[in-house]
Amino acid sequence: MDRPRGPVLADAARGRILFGGDYNPEQWPEETWHEDVRLMKEAGVNTVTLGVFSWARLEPRPGEREFGWLDTLMDLMHDNGVGVVLATPTASPPPWMGRLHPETLPRDADGHVEWWGGRQHFSHSSAVYRRYAAAITEDLAARYGSHPALTMWHINNEYCTFDHGDEAAAAFRRWLRDRYGTLDALNTAWGTAFWSQGYDCWEGVLPPRRAHYLNNPSQVLDFRRFTSDMLLECFTAERDIVARHTPHIPVTTNFMPLWTGQDGWRWAEEEDVVSVDLYPDSLDPLAPRSAALVQDLTRSQARGPWMVMEQAAGGVNWRGVNQPKPRGLNRLWSLQAVARGADAVCYFQWRQSRQGAEKFHSAMLGHAGPRGRAFQEVKRLGADLARIGGEVAGTGIGADVAVLHDWHAWWAGDQQGRPSTEVEYGAVLSAWHGALWESAVTCDFAHPEHDLSGYRMVVAPQLYLLTDAAVDNLLAYVRGGGTLVAGFLTGTADQDDRIRPGGMDPRLRELFGIGVLHEWWPLPPGEHVDCEGFSGTLWSEEIDAADTVSETLAYRGGELDGMPAVLRRDRAWYLSTLPEPRALRDLLARIAAGAGVRPVLDGLPPGVEAVRRGGLLFLLNHGRAPVTVPLPGRHLDLLSGTAVTDGVALGRYGAAVLRP
Amino acid sequence: MDRPRGPVLADAARGRILFGGDYNPEQWPEETWHEDVRLMKEAGVNTVTLGVFSWARLEPRPGEREFGWLDTLMDLMHDNGVGVVLATPTASPPPWMGRLHPETLPRDADGHVEWWGGRQHFSHSSAVYRRYAAAITEDLAARYGSHPALTMWHINNEYCTFDHGDEAAAAFRRWLRDRYGTLDALNTAWGTAFWSQGYDCWEGVLPPRRAHYLNNPSQVLDFRRFTSDMLLECFTAERDIVARHTPHIPVTTNFMPLWTGQDGWRWAEEEDVVSVDLYPDSLDPLAPRSAALVQDLTRSQARGPWMVMEQAAGGVNWRGVNQPKPRGLNRLWSLQAVARGADAVCYFQWRQSRQGAEKFHSAMLGHAGPRGRAFQEVKRLGADLARIGGEVAGTGIGADVAVLHDWHAWWAGDQQGRPSTEVEYGAVLSAWHGALWESAVTCDFAHPEHDLSGYRMVVAPQLYLLTDAAVDNLLAYVRGGGTLVAGFLTGTADQDDRIRPGGMDPRLRELFGIGVLHEWWPLPPGEHVDCEGFSGTLWSEEIDAADTVSETLAYRGGELDGMPAVLRRDRAWYLSTLPEPRALRDLLARIAAGAGVRPVLDGLPPGVEAVRRGGLLFLLNHGRAPVTVPLPGRHLDLLSGTAVTDGVALGRYGAAVLRP
Amino acid sequence: MDRPRGPVLADAARGRILFGGDYNPEQWPEETWHEDVRLMKEAGVNTVTLGVFSWARLEPRPGEREFGWLDTLMDLMHDNGVGVVLATPTASPPPWMGRLHPETLPRDADGHVEWWGGRQHFSHSSAVYRRYAAAITEDLAARYGSHPALTMWHINNEYCTFDHGDEAAAAFRRWLRDRYGTLDALNTAWGTAFWSQGYDCWEGVLPPRRAHYLNNPSQVLDFRRFTSDMLLECFTAERDIVARHTPHIPVTTNFMPLWTGQDGWRWAEEEDVVSVDLYPDSLDPLAPRSAALVQDLTRSQARGPWMVMEQAAGGVNWRGVNQPKPRGLNRLWSLQAVARGADAVCYFQWRQSRQGAEKFHSAMLGHAGPRGRAFQEVKRLGADLARIGGEVAGTGIGADVAVLHDWHAWWAGDQQGRPSTEVEYGAVLSAWHGALWESAVTCDFAHPEHDLSGYRMVVAPQLYLLTDAAVDNLLAYVRGGGTLVAGFLTGTADQDDRIRPGGMDPRLRELFGIGVLHEWWPLPPGEHVDCEGFSGTLWSEEIDAADTVSETLAYRGGELDGMPAVLRRDRAWYLSTLPEPRALRDLLARIAAGAGVRPVLDGLPPGVEAVRRGGLLFLLNHGRAPVTVPLPGRHLDLLSGTAVTDGVALGRYGAAVLRP
Repeated sequence: MDRPRGPVLADAARGRILFGGDYNPEQWPEETWHEDVRLMKEAGVNTVTLGVFSWARLEPRPGEREFGWLDTLMDLMHDNGVGVVLATPTASPPPWMGRLHPETLPRDADGHVEWWGGRQHFSHSSAVYRRYAAAITEDLAARYGSHPALTMWHINNEYCTFDHGDEAAAAFRRWLRDRYGTLDALNTAWGTAFWSQGYDCWEGVLPPRRAHYLNNPSQVLDFRRFTSDMLLECFTAERDIVARHTPHIPVTTNFMPLWTGQDGWRWAEEEDVVSVDLYPDSLDPLAPRSAALVQDLTRSQARGPWMVMEQAAGGVNWRGVNQPKPRGLNRLWSLQAVARGADAVCYFQWRQSRQGAEKFHSAMLGHAGPRGRAFQEVKRLGADLARIGGEVAGTGIGADVAVLHDWHAWWAGDQQGRPSTEVEYGAVLSAWHGALWESAVTCDFAHPEHDLSGYRMVVAPQLYLLTDAAVDNLLAYVRGGGTLVAGFLTGTADQDDRIRPGGMDPRLRELFGIGVLHEWWPLPPGEHVDCEGFSGTLWSEEIDAADTVSETLAYRGGELDGMPAVLRRDRAWYLSTLPEPRALRDLLARIAAGAGVRPVLDGLPPGVEAVRRGGLLFLLNHGRAPVTVPLPGRHLDLLSGTAVTDGVALGRYGAAVLRP
Repeated sequence: MDRPRGPVLADAARGRILFGGDYNPEQWPEETWHEDVRLMKEAGVNTVTLGVFSWARLEPRPGEREFGWLDTLMDLMHDNGVGVVLATPTASPPPWMGRLHPETLPRDADGHVEWWGGRQHFSHSSAVYRRYAAAITEDLAARYGSHPALTMWHINNEYCTFDHGDEAAAAFRRWLRDRYGTLDALNTAWGTAFWSQGYDCWEGVLPPRRAHYLNNPSQVLDFRRFTSDMLLECFTAERDIVARHTPHIPVTTNFMPLWTGQDGWRWAEEEDVVSVDLYPDSLDPLAPRSAALVQDLTRSQARGPWMVMEQAAGGVNWRGVNQPKPRGLNRLWSLQAVARGADAVCYFQWRQSRQGAEKFHSAMLGHAGPRGRAFQEVKRLGADLARIGGEVAGTGIGADVAVLHDWHAWWAGDQQGRPSTEVEYGAVLSAWHGALWESAVTCDFAHPEHDLSGYRMVVAPQLYLLTDAAVDNLLAYVRGGGTLVAGFLTGTADQDDRIRPGGMDPRLRELFGIGVLHEWWPLPPGEHVDCEGFSGTLWSEEIDAADTVSETLAYRGGELDGMPAVLRRDRAWYLSTLPEPRALRDLLARIAAGAGVRPVLDGLPPGVEAVRRGGLLFLLNHGRAPVTVPLPGRHLDLLSGTAVTDGVALGRYGAAVLRP
Repeated sequence: MDRPRGPVLADAARGRILFGGDYNPEQWPEETWHEDVRLMKEAGVNTVTLGVFSWARLEPRPGEREFGWLDTLMDLMHDNGVGVVLATPTASPPPWMGRLHPETLPRDADGHVEWWGGRQHFSHSSAVYRRYAAAITEDLAARYGSHPALTMWHINNEYCTFDHGDEAAAAFRRWLRDRYGTLDALNTAWGTAFWSQGYDCWEGVLPPRRAHYLNNPSQVLDFRRFTSDMLLECFTAERDIVARHTPHIPVTTNFMPLWTGQDGWRWAEEEDVVSVDLYPDSLDPLAPRSAALVQDLTRSQARGPWMVMEQAAGGVNWRGVNQPKPRGLNRLWSLQAVARGADAVCYFQWRQSRQGAEKFHSAMLGHAGPRGRAFQEVKRLGADLARIGGEVAGTGIGADVAVLHDWHAWWAGDQQGRPSTEVEYGAVLSAWHGALWESAVTCDFAHPEHDLSGYRMVVAPQLYLLTDAAVDNLLAYVRGGGTLVAGFLTGTADQDDRIRPGGMDPRLRELFGIGVLHEWWPLPPGEHVDCEGFSGTLWSEEIDAADTVSETLAYRGGELDGMPAVLRRDRAWYLSTLPEPRALRDLLARIAAGAGVRPVLDGLPPGVEAVRRGGLLFLLNHGRAPVTVPLPGRHLDLLSGTAVTDGVALGRYGAAVLRP
C-alpha cells in the first residue's frame, strides 16, 4: 500500500486497447517470424509477450547467454509497431538446473520430487534457484531496458507451486519466526495443545507433510500463507531488478483467478499492472457469469483498468473434453472483459505450437492457419477493439455493491475434517456474485478490511475466517448506514482458525440478531430444505433468534421447522442456508433495492448482460437467439457505427457499445 | 485366557453408570477448568478421561517431566467427585520424537513416511518409541497410582497403525520365525512355490510393500496378524507397568469396532475393561442396527458389562457431510448402549476444541456453550442415567443365538484378486446380524472356536477362513443338537488362506448336504438372482446337492435354474446367496423358531427395539412418529417414574426402561 | 524381417491342434503329478508349459541349480505323450535378487520401488538381472535342449513393465543417442523449445518422471518405444541363447493384446510362434467381437497359425466381479479362436492353485476337481479338437479387408492434455473392427507401412501418428485402386508427435477432399451429433470441403450444421465423427460392397459368427437361443460327424465345422 505509485497500464496502452498474445518464436524458424509479423498487422495486434519460456534458450548452459535471437525479435517487433511485454523466463528453469542442483526441485506432501520435463519445477525457497533467476533477470533488464519495443515487464508465469521439501521447511520456519516471534506464540496460534503437537524447538516445525490422520489446520493455513509470501518474494525480487533499470516501465505477473497459491489482494499491491488468465469453459452454461466474476475481481484488485494476459481463441487442452469457442464467442467474451474494465485483451498464444504439451491449446493463429475461422474472428475482433479503444481505454466502472472476498478465509475454510466437504468456497462465492450479475447489479470485490463506506450494499458470501479488524470494519460499515448481507460460515473463526465463542463472532451474532447458534446442519448432496417462500441448499442451521431481530424467514418442516433461515436486524442480514439460485437472486435484488441500488438497465431480456463503463453502455447477448433490448432514446453503436433508437437488436452472441 | 482375573468395570463404576468423556484441559486456561467442573456437576458427569493427548505437555523435551498441571486437575476432579480414567499419552508422540528419532515414524506400503503434525505417527515396532512410552507410563503410574481420583487406566488410543518400514520388517521376521519356526514352514504356509517367491533366508522376507501386481495374500494376512500382535505388545507393555503399580485399578484401551488393525477377541482377553468408540451416522437409516451390532460385539468381547469410551454428542467431522444428532437422538442411542450392556456412557469429548483438527467434532459442551441444545440434552441424559443406574449396572443379557465372527476370517477374505470386490465382510455380517435385530432376537457374537453349546442357534455369515479346530467345533455343535446356519464363502480356506479341497471344507460340505460346488457366481452390482420365494443378491453358486440333503430352495431361471440356493441337512443350513433383507429376516426367523428361539417381544411396531437386561425391559423407538407398544401387565418405567398398563406409549425417539 | 526363417508352430503341433496349459507342479506333491498325468490323458491334453514361475525353485540361492524335480517332470510328460513348452522363469526373479541387488527393482514415475512379493519385479535395464536371466536360460537350454519332451520355448511371461529408475534412465539415454545421434536432433524431435526444456547434455535427459504439470508428450512417446525395445532386448537375449542350443525348436513369448508395453508388429518379427493371452469377459455382451479382434490381430502378427497361450476355463480373478463361463462358453470361444487361425488352445492353468495370488483364477482342473463342470467341459473340448485338428491345423484364412493399427499411433495419441479424454484408441479400434465383424466381413490387421495391395478395402480407425512413409503408402494404395476409409484423428501428427500443418497431413486432406479443418469438436460424454441419416458420437469436426470432394454426408443442426460429417473423394473416405454402431456397420458394409468385398455368408441370424478357414466353414452361435443358419447345399459337420442340408441348427453356444 505504501509502495510509491509507479507506472501504470496506460503507459503501455497509450490510449488504445492492447491486443495480442504470448509469442514463442523460438519454436519456429526465422522465416516464420516474418509471416507472423505480417499476420499480426493484418489482425491489428499491437502487443506480444516474449520470453515466457525462453530460459533454456537464453541460458543454454549455466551462466552462458544467447541474446542474439531475442535482439532480432525485439527489433522486428519494433519495426512493425508491435510493443513487447518482455517476460522473465523464470517459471521454467532449464534441465541443467535440476541436474546440477537437485535441491531446486520441489517436493509434494508425500515426498515425491517434481522433476523437470514439464514446467514450474522450481522451489520458491531455493537460494540457488533465486540466484540464477536474479542473474538472468538482471541481464535481460540491462540489455532490453532501453529498447524502444519494450512496453511492460512480465515476471515469471502463473505462480502456483508448493514445496514440502527441506529447504522450504527451513524457509517456513524463518517465516513463522517472523510471524510469531516466539515458539510459545506459534504453539498458541496453532493450538498444538491438542493431539500433543507442542513444539519444543523451531527445528521440529515442518510443512504439513503426509500424516497418519488429519493435519493441523492452522499449520496448513500458515503453509498456504507462507507459500503465497515466498512466491511473492520471488516476484518482488525480479520486479525490483527490472524496476531499477526501467522505473518508467510497468511490471505485472499473470494471476490464475481463484487458484490457491496466491493472496491476490496482497500481490496486487506489488504490481503496476494487474493481469489475469481467463479461461471460462464454453461447455459451461454459466461461463459468462464465471467470467464476470473473474473480471470484477481483477478490476477490484487493480483499482482501475486491467489486463487479460491470457485467454484462448478457441479450446484449451487441460479439461476432459475441450471444445473450441463457437463462432462469435471469442469476440463476445473479449468485449465482456473490456466492458468490465480490461484495457488489454491478450491470448495464450499467438501461433499454436506444433509440439509439446500445449499443442492442442488453441491460438490466435491455429493449426488451420490464416484461412481458419479462429484467425478470421481474431481479425474482426482486432478491428473492433481498434474502433472502440480510443473511447474506452482508461475509463472506469462504478459499483454500489461490494462482494467481500479474502483468500485467507477461503484457505482456512478449505480444511480436512470440516462439517461438509460439499461446501466449496468458490461455488458459494460464485452463487452470490452470480445472483447479482443476473440482476444486472454491477459490483466490485473488496477485502473485509477495506474501506467499504462508498458502497450502498456489501455482501459477505462466506468469510469463514475474519480478523478482529475485519469484524470492526463490518460493524462500522453497518453503523455508518451500510447494508450488510452475510452467508453462513461467516465470522466462524479468527485469524488463526480458532473458532469464535458460540461458533460465530459474538459481535456479529448480535449484529444479525442471532441468539444461540446451536448447530450447523450441512445438507447431503442433492437434498434441500424448505424455507418460507424458497428452497435452501447445501447448508442449514439450528438457531434461536435474539429478541432484537427485526425480521426472519423461517425453515418449514424437518428438524428446523420454525427456526430462522434468514434473519435481519436493521440493515444487517444473515442467510443460514444457500437459497436456490432464483431465490438468492430475488432476495439480494430486494435487499439491494431497499439499499438504493439500481440495476444497470431494467427489463433486460434473459441472457443479456449490461455494463456501463465510462460514458458507454455495453450490451452483450450471451444467447444464440437474436434479441432486442429496449433502450429509451438514441444511441450510437461504436461497433457498427450505426445509430439506434429506443431499442438495440443483438444477434447471436451479439454486442453493442453505445454512446448516448 | 489364563491371565488371572483382575479388576473389572464395576470397580470403577461402583453401582453407577459412568457418564462423562475425554477431557483435554491443556487446551484451556485454568479459569475454564473451574467452569468445566461446575458444568460437569450440573450435567451429572462422574468420570473423565485425562491425558490422552498430553505427551508433549507432560514431556515437553526428551526426559523432562511437567506434572504440575495434571496434579492440579487430578485434585480438582477428586474434590468435585469426578473419577478419572487416566490415559497414557502414547498415541501421539511429541514432535521431538520424530525429529530426533526419524526411525520411529511409520511408512506405508509405498514407502511414504507418516510425519508428525497429525497423530499416531509412531511405529509399533520401534524400540525407541517403546522405550519412551514405557518411561512416561512408568512415571504416570508412579505419580498417580495412589491418587484417589484414579478409577481406571486408558492405554494409548484407537490402536490402528501399520508400518512397512525397515524396523517393522525386522520385527515381522521375528514374528514369523516365532510362528513358523523354519523357513520351509513359512514357504509352505505362504505358498511361495507360486510366482517364484520361495525365500532362501529370513532376511529376504518383507512386509507386503508395493508390488508390480498382486501381493502374496498369505503374506498380507500374516502382516495383519503381526500388526495386531505388535500393537498388542505395545498395549500389554504399558498395561503391565500400570498394573504393577495399581493391581486393583482396571485397565482398558478403546477399540474401533470393525476397524482392521486389531484381533478383538485376542485383545479383549488382555483387558480388564472392554471399551469401544461408537459412531453411528445420524444420516444412515440403518444406524440403530449398526450400533446394536457394535454393542453386541463389544458385550461379547467383554463377557459382561462394557464401556462406551467415545461417542459424539452431536456430529463428527470426518464424514463427507456431518450432521448433528437431532433432538433426542443422543439420549436414545445412549440408552440403547445401556440396554445392550454398557455400564459407561462417555464422549469424545467434554468441551469442544476451538482449535486443531477436531474442532468441528461435537462435544458434551459444544461451541454453543451451556445454552446450546447439545448440553441441555446431555444434562437430561445424565439425570436419566443416574435414575436407572442403580438397577442396571452390573446386570447381564441373555441370548440364545450367536453370530460367529473372526477378524482373521475377515482379513483373509479381504484380499486382492478375489471373486468379487462387491463382497464386503462387514456388510455381510451386518446384513445377518441386522436380520436378527429386525426380528427382535437378541444375539451374542462368538469366535468359531468358542464353546457354542449354550446357544440354540449359531449363524456364520461368512467365515471364509476356518481352522481345523473351528470346523471340529462347528461339527460338534450340530452333533450336539445345535442349529447352524452358514452363508457363502464359509469354510473356503484354512488358517494359511489355502483353499480347502473342493472349494469348501469337505466335512462342512457333507454337513450341509453339498455334493459338488462347481462354481462361485458373484453377481454384478445391482443385479439379483431369483430363488424359490425370494431374491438373492451379491453372490450365487453352482452346486449339486448331495443325496443326503433334507431340503432345498432352488434358484429360478438363469444359469443356475433348479440348483439349490439354500440347502438344509438336518439342523445345518447353507445359504449360497445373500437373500434380500426381508427374505433373510424371515428365513432366519423361521429357522430360529424351529430351534426354539423366541424374540424379546412379539408384535413390536416397526422401528421399535426391545432388549431385556437383568430384570428390566428396554423399549426404544427409533422412529420420529409416536407409537404404542402393546405389553401385557403392569410395569414401572424407571425413566419417567410412572406406571404403565398393557401398553407403553413412546414419543419421537422415546425410550422406556420397564420393571415388571 | 530379415531374420532367417526358423522353426514354426507346425513343428510343435505336428498336424494337431495343441491343447493344454500352464502346469505349475512345484505347488503340488509328487503323488499329485501322477493324478495330473492321468487326467491330462483323459482330457486329451497334448501340451503343457512348464517352468514359467520356477526360478526360485531352479535357483534357490544365487548360482545354485536344482533341476532334479524338472528332470522328473520332463520325463513324466514324455512318457505320457505330452509335449512340453519349456519356459524361461525370468518373469519373476527369486527374492534373493532384489535383496542382494536392489537396483534390479523397477521404480514408477513417482519414484516408488516395485518390491518382490508379487511378480515381474525386474528392471528391463538392469545389467545384473540380465546376467542372471541369461545364466539360468543357458543352463535350461543346455540341460533340456535335447530332451524328447521339448516342443517349444516360452520366454519370460507377459512382458509389460516400465522402469523410471536411474539405470533405466541411463539406458534411455543410450537408446535416444542411437535414435537421434545428436542432442540437437533430440531437442528438435521433442520440441524442447517449448517450456524451456532444451537439453544441454545427455546426462540431463530422464524418463518422464512426475512433473508439476504436463510431461513432454514426445518424451513420453519415446519412453514407451524405449520400454518396448528394452523388453525386446530381454526377449531376444534369451531367445538367442535357446536358439543356439536348439535351432529346430520354435520360440515364443505370450503377448497381452492391446496392452501398452510392446510394439506388437516389431515383436512378432522376432518370434517363431506368435502366442497370446486371451481373456474376454463373460459378463460383456461384446466379448465375442472383442475376442475376434484379438484373434484377427494375433493372426495378422503371426502371418499364419498362432497360439492361444493362455485363456481361462472359467472366471479370472482380476476383474471387479469375476463370473465363471456358463456351460458351453469355454468350448465355443475356443472354437472361435481355432476358426480365426489358432492351432493351439491353451489355458492358464492346468490345475487351480490352492494358494497364492491367483488361487481364484480358474483352471482346466478347478477346485471342484474331476467331477466339476469345468473339467467335464474341458474333456469334451479336447475330444472336439482332436476330431477336427487334422483338417484344420496349418490352414489359412483369406481376407479382403485390412484394419490399420500401429502401437506408436496409439501411444502418441494417448497423451495428457489432448482434445478429449473420452477418446480411447482401443474403443475406437474396436468400434470399427466390430462393425466389420457384425457384417461377417473377415479382416486382417495391418501396419500402415505394410504392403496393402492385396486388400480391396483398408480402414484406418485412428492413426493419429503417421510417418511420411505411411502416408506415402496410403496414397499409393488408393492410387493403385484401393478403397481407403479413415476415421478422425488420422494423420494428425508425424513420427515425433509434431502436428501436421493444417491439423492433418496436407496430402491426406487433399486425398479426402478436405479444404480447411477449422476445429476439432469433441463431444461430452453421452452427447451425440445429428448427421444426415445417422447419429455421431464422441467427436465431430468443423470442416470446409474442398471443391474436389465427390460426396458428403452433412451434420444437421448445432454449430456444424451443413458441414460434412463424412467426405468421399473418389475411393477415399473420411469420417469426422464416430457413427453409432449400427450406422458405422451399415456405412462400412456399403463401402465394402462398393469395393467388391463380400461377407462370409449372407443372411446370418443375429449373434452367429461365420469364418472360413482353409476349406472349412465355422459357424458359431454366440446366443443362448437355438438358431438355424440357412446354408445351401450339403455339408459335413466335423464336430458332430453328421451331414447337414440347406441349413445348420445350432443350439445354445453351439458350433459347427462344415466341410462342403
